[in-house]
Amino acid sequence: MSDPVKLIEPRTLKGFRDYLPELMIPREWMLEQARRVYRSYGFAPIDTPALEYAEILLGKGGEESDKQIYRFRDSGDRDIALRFDLTIPFARFAAQYIGELGTPFKRYHMGPVWRGENIQRGRYREFWQCDFDTIGTTSNAADIEVSLVIHDLMRGLNLDRFVIHVNNRLVLNGLLEELGLAGHTAPLLRALDKLPKIGRDGVLAEMAANTGVAAAQADRLLALAQTSGSNQDILARLKSDFGTNPKAADGIRRLEELLAAATKAGIPDGMIVLDLSIARGLDYYTGTVYETFLTDMPKIGSVCSGGRYDNLAGLYTKQHLPGVGASLGLDRLLAALEELKLLKGTATPAPVFIVQFTAERIGDYQRMARVLRAAGIGAEVFPDAKKLGQQFQYAEKRGHKIALIAGPDDFAAGTWNVKDLAKREEKKGVPDAEVAAFVRSLLPV
Amino acid sequence: MSDPVKLIEPRTLKGFRDYLPELMIPREWMLEQARRVYRSYGFAPIDTPALEYAEILLGKGGEESDKQIYRFRDSGDRDIALRFDLTIPFARFAAQYIGELGTPFKRYHMGPVWRGENIQRGRYREFWQCDFDTIGTTSNAADIEVSLVIHDLMRGLNLDRFVIHVNNRLVLNGLLEELGLAGHTAPLLRALDKLPKIGRDGVLAEMAANTGVAAAQADRLLALAQTSGSNQDILARLKSDFGTNPKAADGIRRLEELLAAATKAGIPDGMIVLDLSIARGLDYYTGTVYETFLTDMPKIGSVCSGGRYDNLAGLYTKQHLPGVGASLGLDRLLAALEELKLLKGTATPAPVFIVQFTAERIGDYQRMARVLRAAGIGAEVFPDAKKLGQQFQYAEKRGHKIALIAGPDDFAAGTWNVKDLAKREEKKGVPDAEVAAFVRSLLPV
Repeated sequence: MSDPVKLIEPRTLKGFRDYLPELMIPREWMLEQARRVYRSYGFAPIDTPALEYAEILLGKGGEESDKQIYRFRDSGDRDIALRFDLTIPFARFAAQYIGELGTPFKRYHMGPVWRGENIQRGRYREFWQCDFDTIGTTSNAADIEVSLVIHDLMRGLNLDRFVIHVNNRLVLNGLLEELGLAGHTAPLLRALDKLPKIGRDGVLAEMAANTGVAAAQADRLLALAQTSGSNQDILARLKSDFGTNPKAADGIRRLEELLAAATKAGIPDGMIVLDLSIARGLDYYTGTVYETFLTDMPKIGSVCSGGRYDNLAGLYTKQHLPGVGASLGLDRLLAALEELKLLKGTATPAPVFIVQFTAERIGDYQRMARVLRAAGIGAEVFPDAKKLGQQFQYAEKRGHKIALIAGPDDFAAGTWNVKDLAKREEKKGVPDAEVAAFVRSLLPV
Repeated sequence: MSDPVKLIEPRTLKGFRDYLPELMIPREWMLEQARRVYRSYGFAPIDTPALEYAEILLGKGGEESDKQIYRFRDSGDRDIALRFDLTIPFARFAAQYIGELGTPFKRYHMGPVWRGENIQRGRYREFWQCDFDTIGTTSNAADIEVSLVIHDLMRGLNLDRFVIHVNNRLVLNGLLEELGLAGHTAPLLRALDKLPKIGRDGVLAEMAANTGVAAAQADRLLALAQTSGSNQDILARLKSDFGTNPKAADGIRRLEELLAAATKAGIPDGMIVLDLSIARGLDYYTGTVYETFLTDMPKIGSVCSGGRYDNLAGLYTKQHLPGVGASLGLDRLLAALEELKLLKGTATPAPVFIVQFTAERIGDYQRMARVLRAAGIGAEVFPDAKKLGQQFQYAEKRGHKIALIAGPDDFAAGTWNVKDLAKREEKKGVPDAEVAAFVRSLLPV
């Protein structure tokens, strides 16, 4: 006897995950919705390689980012790395092709990114992002559009209870100028950005530690950032208190235009709110900033965030490319919905199940299945002529809605038996030519 | 003056490519068609990580494959690698979850794979594959279905001129037994597989070099493999010459059933042909094998290939998992269509372009755009109130079909001007409420 073969343990890397059908079906649906909404606004798809020269990716997101990058040498001894977001590859892409593409250029990009970060619940080392941006224009029309896209995207994902928080870095910069804190803008806004995570006292402590500004001033900044009230109230207060500062005035005007245009374009009241505490930690944002929170899941943080930046690709080209965009954290949203058990559990994309009654009739079963498919109704034929009970068990476990059964008598009569698996009702003797229409009538629209 | 900042050269790695909108739009369309067809047959989507433990991937496709694998150590000093196909990750996946999933299990998987191979025209180091498989059954019904899926997939991709070549390894094994060559099966079939590439003489030379079989025997094998005639002719010859060999008889029966069922299921004559020279180089195929050739592009080789295997995941589990499936080489097909200039050049997914006549009306432009989007018609609003000529130039370059224009008079009248950009015809004064229906009437169904 030979030694038994040693098996390789089937496992994924720490921090990585597989997607089984029950999770992959909603994930594909979400990707499809994002694609549909982005396309409906005229954003065009692009793709870039997962691997880039390391010099393209390094040093772009700070030391913390660099540590998380999967970086190695290929067999040609090139220093290469897996992308950790879709923004840097887009900057490289824009620098390379903008002459050919022309401006304005609107693109979306959906794909996996990799970060070797410490693993938390619902966060993985490989996850999909869905980005969209308009570059080559400073027009506020593009900023307005981003808020509409986020709204339609959330609605497209069947999420009704969400709020888009908007702010403008110009307003924050104006406030900082008026408070005499302009020299500390970056660290102050990075601290402010952590408000939902570390709370008021945490932010104040971080501001003191990183900037040395007086407690009273930091406190005043935070009080301003937390100004509450209706959008109109906040705008009125901003105008009266800071309207003479040119930066603040410009930011106020852009926010005011955004809110008015969104209302005109049909966004219901209350879906977009002014929130002066939204700073976005990333240093490159310079204008409008966006975060999107789910009313019933505040803890997962913003699910769609972005903003306006002055120059996308300055590291790769001298051409000035201002723009505005946002990113949907698709896999993080999916993981949250999964954890909250908000996903419908179905393991098949095909509603119809065709029983294999006799193996000799496989061509006939597939003929009917193809009739249904041509009518846009997915239909699976069971591969083995097993006992009916076993076949129905399979169909119910998978989540098929309707079963078709035909044995010798039915073939002789040219009819099918159609069973609604949920209601456990069966209609016998449906004529072959009427099956597709009858099945359609049983399925939800 | 400070030194000018040194720019990083924006470039992709050798052997990798970016997808600009004109190429990405058809690529997304192809992925959507594959997804639609696979789903219509009840194949369910799965996904696995791009990165796996190296031990999962190594040694599965021979030395040549191993050399092409992107392999490195992560920051936790794990020996990891990027997947080079979707089959090995599926084998690992199946071993891990089959108890939970149950059999038969039908899955599709679409995603990028990475191979550091020498670069040829139309072949890149990162490319998408679209695989589908049924595992956990030896039933010929699953083999039959694979041929139907390939047919519907090609038709879904608007490819009408193609032929699916089928064979069965059992038939080849039977022939080899009868010719007394059973001891050389693997190298003989690997040589035979190269017939379209290296021709008859090349195959004979390789057979001689790698197996030492007599020239007359190799010649006879090749003559048999090249048997021409109708499917019925070939089946009749096989039965009379080799029907007594049990393996050959089993293979002949399965092929005969496949062809009959496909006809019954509605596949037109001539789309599936018996081709005894199809061997598939991969050692793990044991039954039906499939290759798909485009009539007008024979040089690109098979665009959708696969076969039946006895055991998918033997390296990772003791559970025996027979199956059958095939893989669409999506990016290779796309590159071929691109080279042959068979792709329609459009750089926008939105047919409608809305001119920004006055910046103050941005809310109104977006309102109309959202009406169109809700009716399923993509609509882009230009972000800047530039000169009309510039805006139309942009719209035509991008490939928008229809432009909407409204100035102050139109807003006062509640109407829009609708321009067909291809025909250069304009209809003025279309009432606001009728725009969507009118635009729809101008677009192809």
